[in-house]
Amino acid sequence: MQPLPDPFLSSAEEVLRAACLPPSKSLLPSAAPAGSSPPASSVADPGVPAQDRAVSCLPPGILSGPPTREDPRAYSDCLVQLSNPNVAAMKEDVLYHFSLSTSTHDFPAMFGDVKFVCVGGSPSRMNTFIRYVAAELGLAHPGEEYPNICAGTDRYAMYKVGPVLSVSHGMGIPSIAIMLHELIKLLYHARCSNVTIIRIGTSGGIGLEPGSVVITQQAVDACFKPEFEQIVLGKRVVRSTNLDEQLVQELMQCSTNLNEFTTVVGNTMCTLDFYEGQGRLDGALCCYTEKDKQAYLHAAHAAGIRNIEMESSVFAAMCGACGLRAAVVCVTLLDRLQGDQINSPHEVLAEYQQRPQRLVGHFIKKSLGRA
Amino acid sequence: MQPLPDPFLSSAEEVLRAACLPPSKSLLPSAAPAGSSPPASSVADPGVPAQDRAVSCLPPGILSGPPTREDPRAYSDCLVQLSNPNVAAMKEDVLYHFSLSTSTHDFPAMFGDVKFVCVGGSPSRMNTFIRYVAAELGLAHPGEEYPNICAGTDRYAMYKVGPVLSVSHGMGIPSIAIMLHELIKLLYHARCSNVTIIRIGTSGGIGLEPGSVVITQQAVDACFKPEFEQIVLGKRVVRSTNLDEQLVQELMQCSTNLNEFTTVVGNTMCTLDFYEGQGRLDGALCCYTEKDKQAYLHAAHAAGIRNIEMESSVFAAMCGACGLRAAVVCVTLLDRLQGDQINSPHEVLAEYQQRPQRLVGHFIKKSLGRA
Repeated sequence: MQPLPDPFLSSAEEVLRAACLPPSKSLLPSAAPAGSSPPASSVADPGVPAQDRAVSCLPPGILSGPPTREDPRAYSDCLVQLSNPNVAAMKEDVLYHFSLSTSTHDFPAMFGDVKFVCVGGSPSRMNTFIRYVAAELGLAHPGEEYPNICAGTDRYAMYKVGPVLSVSHGMGIPSIAIMLHELIKLLYHARCSNVTIIRIGTSGGIGLEPGSVVITQQAVDACFKPEFEQIVLGKRVVRSTNLDEQLVQELMQCSTNLNEFTTVVGNTMCTLDFYEGQGRLDGALCCYTEKDKQAYLHAAHAAGIRNIEMESSVFAAMCGACGLRAAVVCVTLLDRLQGDQINSPHEVLAEYQQRPQRLVGHFIKKSLGRA
Repeated sequence: MQPLPDPFLSSAEEVLRAACLPPSKSLLPSAAPAGSSPPASSVADPGVPAQDRAVSCLPPGILSGPPTREDPRAYSDCLVQLSNPNVAAMKEDVLYHFSLSTSTHDFPAMFGDVKFVCVGGSPSRMNTFIRYVAAELGLAHPGEEYPNICAGTDRYAMYKVGPVLSVSHGMGIPSIAIMLHELIKLLYHARCSNVTIIRIGTSGGIGLEPGSVVITQQAVDACFKPEFEQIVLGKRVVRSTNLDEQLVQELMQCSTNLNEFTTVVGNTMCTLDFYEGQGRLDGALCCYTEKDKQAYLHAAHAAGIRNIEMESSVFAAMCGACGLRAAVVCVTLLDRLQGDQINSPHEVLAEYQQRPQRLVGHFIKKSLGRA
């Protein structure tokens, strides 16, 4: 690929302005170092308030955050937007981890009608979901198979029926982030509009009966902050993790209609690790006590956190930055105040995992006027 | 699971001492907050030097870091160690993401003879590897299949032949960390000794011809520091990412013997994102220029970094903390100084991906005296 023109930002100074970090806050030396010594200072100044470190990569005129009723985008077709002007200038775009390319696949023909994207960690669960949704929407035919659109790779699996796309994302922030970069570009190349994206997943609950479903109000990090932080070119960049409030209410109403399982609205803590990162005592490494763990989980509960998983913060941040209406719906497989191991019988866990699927299936059916 | 006794650490004060952070450096309030406000300060004090923030979770008497020739462990059987005293007291240990449990599987019988563990992102690549190694070691029989030991889940895939275990880990630090917690516990429960673990993966190169293989000298983060940082109970914990120097030299010698492709020893940068996190211009989000990207990649090159991937830092940190002899061997699929997209023909990329397998296959054969 040749170097691409960048009409949006053209100098290092502007990049720093966009990142809301003065040059001194860079985590790297301002020029390429002569030697190989790592930089002495490694963390951003804790005195800089979070909102000052927030970044908008959107070009002028594009609002940040998901569309709302007050937002002019809600009154017209809302095309999927990228926060990257380079992509429009590319002759070919290889979505490597999907094994799809704009030069070999007709994205508008394949995906142009997509209105709902559901994502989840496990490939087999996302296959189960597409079959369930097909039946719910009356689009299933006896013996029909749903081919994996990403059959050329085993990184992710993707299935489609009617206006619904179902995509796996693996486990953890980096894995779902790769998928979302390529998914959002796919929707952009396909010229999709008015897309709603929902993560249907599993999680550990805090103070909830196992099997309860949590609709995420706010995705927060391991310090309970509603932020997603990453390192871009050696600088700390922080993005908001707000989700669509109206969509939360619509999903809660669907659960009330279904009346099949307990559903709550609460904050979701997104961590980078399943064991130490979530205060578990049963990993290969652990250097704290049950008492320390309980203090942390109770502090989380007091901060409005009702479940813990590993993808919601970057999901909220990236969807928000690209104007996608997004929600997170996770079932809790255990109550972390009671233990760490997931040792319920397989059939119990399997039924729990269907609950977000049933809720979101009902939501899609209702949205399409078929409920 | 009932709360477990913790003979190693018994008070919050001792936890803080173990974490080498004074109470004021905690990212959370010292007790559960009364309200739901997030803490005001969110980052550790940049004035605290990295080595002071390093943590050893090992009980007294267990050395940190991989064994060396000078280390008494090198002279006797080196059993796989956990850095968590709780596990020994557990009646059952469910390795949830492997769909294996100590109460339903005989770990010593299944895995007790394992001496080499090879891990990589893609399940199909790890299946290819076990078939390749079986043939190389003369352990393959015509028409033999290698069943997936983790067939009860689609999170990871695991294959075994003779003393070699081949396990997939998905993409990114969180995904490989979950796998490593459960893998190290599996090796511990199986009472394995003298285990060597090697990650065989793909990466983006910096200033190398595509297809070159990089043996990692040091795994560094996106700020070029040889550290792995994570949040544990709201506190920043930093671990060393040193790898076994002797193993690097042994692997380099194997590549010289093979004489099939270019191999270099260099530092490997481990990032949390494939697009913005690696300075790519072709993601769904990007707010910097080609010039900024080139400055960052050239600074990385000057710091001795020869390739970029997404798992090496936590791999080095966890294996080091548990006394496993570990190495990272990745092929470069492209030169990032020349572009961002991976658009070489499929058959070229497929051949590149075999290179770490051939190198490590030769190493295992030689170690077993069969080369």
